[in-house]
Amino acid sequence: MLGDIINTNAQYLSQKLSYLGLNVYYQSVVGDNMERLVDQINLARSRADIVITTGGLGPTDDDITKAGLCNALKIDLVLQNRLAERIKNYFNKLGTKMPEINLRQAYVPQGGKTLENNNGSAPGIIYEDDKNIFILLPGPPNEMIPMFDSLVFPYLKKKSHSIIKSRTIKVTNISESKLQEMLQSIIDKQKNPTVALYAKSGEIDIRVTAKTENPEEADPLINDMIKNIKAILGDMIFGYDDDTLEYVVNSLLRKNNKTVSIAESCTGGLVSSRLTDIPGASESLMNSLICYSNDAKARLLGVKEETLRKYGAVSKETAEEMALRIKDISKTDIGLSITGIAGPDGGTEEKPVGLCFIGWSYLDKVYTQKCLFNGSRTKNKFRASTKALDLLRLFLIKL
Amino acid sequence: MLGDIINTNAQYLSQKLSYLGLNVYYQSVVGDNMERLVDQINLARSRADIVITTGGLGPTDDDITKAGLCNALKIDLVLQNRLAERIKNYFNKLGTKMPEINLRQAYVPQGGKTLENNNGSAPGIIYEDDKNIFILLPGPPNEMIPMFDSLVFPYLKKKSHSIIKSRTIKVTNISESKLQEMLQSIIDKQKNPTVALYAKSGEIDIRVTAKTENPEEADPLINDMIKNIKAILGDMIFGYDDDTLEYVVNSLLRKNNKTVSIAESCTGGLVSSRLTDIPGASESLMNSLICYSNDAKARLLGVKEETLRKYGAVSKETAEEMALRIKDISKTDIGLSITGIAGPDGGTEEKPVGLCFIGWSYLDKVYTQKCLFNGSRTKNKFRASTKALDLLRLFLIKL
Repeated sequence: MLGDIINTNAQYLSQKLSYLGLNVYYQSVVGDNMERLVDQINLARSRADIVITTGGLGPTDDDITKAGLCNALKIDLVLQNRLAERIKNYFNKLGTKMPEINLRQAYVPQGGKTLENNNGSAPGIIYEDDKNIFILLPGPPNEMIPMFDSLVFPYLKKKSHSIIKSRTIKVTNISESKLQEMLQSIIDKQKNPTVALYAKSGEIDIRVTAKTENPEEADPLINDMIKNIKAILGDMIFGYDDDTLEYVVNSLLRKNNKTVSIAESCTGGLVSSRLTDIPGASESLMNSLICYSNDAKARLLGVKEETLRKYGAVSKETAEEMALRIKDISKTDIGLSITGIAGPDGGTEEKPVGLCFIGWSYLDKVYTQKCLFNGSRTKNKFRASTKALDLLRLFLIKL
Repeated sequence: MLGDIINTNAQYLSQKLSYLGLNVYYQSVVGDNMERLVDQINLARSRADIVITTGGLGPTDDDITKAGLCNALKIDLVLQNRLAERIKNYFNKLGTKMPEINLRQAYVPQGGKTLENNNGSAPGIIYEDDKNIFILLPGPPNEMIPMFDSLVFPYLKKKSHSIIKSRTIKVTNISESKLQEMLQSIIDKQKNPTVALYAKSGEIDIRVTAKTENPEEADPLINDMIKNIKAILGDMIFGYDDDTLEYVVNSLLRKNNKTVSIAESCTGGLVSSRLTDIPGASESLMNSLICYSNDAKARLLGVKEETLRKYGAVSKETAEEMALRIKDISKTDIGLSITGIAGPDGGTEEKPVGLCFIGWSYLDKVYTQKCLFNGSRTKNKFRASTKALDLLRLFLIKL
């Protein structure tokens, strides 16, 4: 509630639950306050069959989840001697005596089953009544996750009748609304599998999700849908699932056995830095020159003074020469160049902030594309670097 | 609800709200379902004064937050022509026509105020009725955060009684526990102002927070505490409040009227990219060479073949020559160099993954520092770049 902790438990559990075909309707977070906790538990059991809690199972005063459940359900919290023994042993194994307060962790809602915790002293609890199933898990992910995976997941799988499987198609350099328009016909007809768009910085994920009785039935449904989407988007798709643009470009360079060098102006090294985030990038990226000043463009890279004077540093002509020169001085197969105005200042009428020329050269050929971005300086840098990587990708797949 | 996204927005907002002295009682997450959304909004307004939502302001079918609020409050969703114009202009600036569906984003709950979005097309909304304040924010953090900080934070600050004023002291290249030790005496005695440490990637914020009736009383309390902390940490402090290491280094370069060039190996351009995130960086950073291959180090930069052969690319000697050579070929005052093993492969017994040498040259002098990082490839790159920027900072303040 103070914002010190990111709620990764909610994400982890939601992922596992949807895989089990269990629809997650609500996630709620409430502080260590008995009244609000009891209200929340009563609300939760009124709107869901299964209620899962994390946290508040520790030995201290502010660990009130078990008491909260008992107050909500009007049941007793009773001492389990076998559990008390187990907790004592847990501390013995650590070579210390159990602190008195940890005895609290041996109290269980009357009729509840306990879930052994091999990574901490707080046991989990499953309590079933005629309407709901309550699953109380410890808060620390390193205790919650193994307990869920080893004990709760199989328990819930027995109760679930279907599974949810999904794959992600990744595209970039298109607006979410434009993509929505292109896929409207598919999205309108969607039922099973469903198709949903998730915009992230610089890319959009298209998630295809099928709900079936078993995994075998899910795959063909998903694959057909992916085929339909691919028929519409074609090369716009840069990858699937965990692919990143950086990874895909690196793989294509290695697959085609091509080396690249980069001359960056407005992106200031960002393209090279993103490419080198991938292990083994050094096999393909020989070197880059960040030529910020005109002097560097001319003297170190070898762009003609005349070109810079006549067309300016931010121009098709300069981007072309940059791409050709970096390839030649670096002795690589491909040369990539980016020159533009990142902003916030430096824009003019005919050359506004966000204007960017991207060039790429191969053998004696050179190509350029003009782009216009409008965001903050860092956003323009990022979008220009994404565009440059994607143009390189599109060139490589046609090699 | 499928567990694809970690809810970082809830954490960010909770942190800022508690900072304003506003108690966060509940966080709730609900899917794109009108009935459940309306129920949730009605529940939220029944148990809190201020209701903040994130997400669901986009142009697509599953963006239903505004409609949900209107259904819950039984008010109309009306087209704001001025807003429609603004959105059209947003797309015009991008050089594209506004897709029809984006017109949806120009609809606002009757009587609501809109919050401009400089990082996306979805405007935020503030709607006040006699009982509650509703604040609707976009979902993507890169849109939500700037909108909250620039527009919502000051708006809420006005409504809060006791004011909480705080300043942040920024340090880097030290572990949180080491810093805790150094400040233990201060942290133990703290009352008002309070002192709290927040570790971020690559830096630690020391937040000094005073709670008083009015700003005038807060300032002296905060300034005294800052003086005490400064007496302990000295030059380790690189900045305050919104300062970034990149910004501070850029300012020092300009203040000292010095130019710099960078030779990057393992960081792959990240140091240069971070420096050029700051407007006007081109006044100080002339150019950089990302010399990934030994050939580039030797042929383009001019590191002696013998040095590379005898000491290896990752060595004090190579870092020294890189720093001297980049300064000379770039004709800058200062040369900065980074060479290391980012990993995950390429490590050996005496040169493990994470080993890094940073060099900097000025006039005829050259200095190096050996570092060892132990994280993922990208983490090692980032920490090496932070270390390099901080070493440059420490050099510049002593000039």
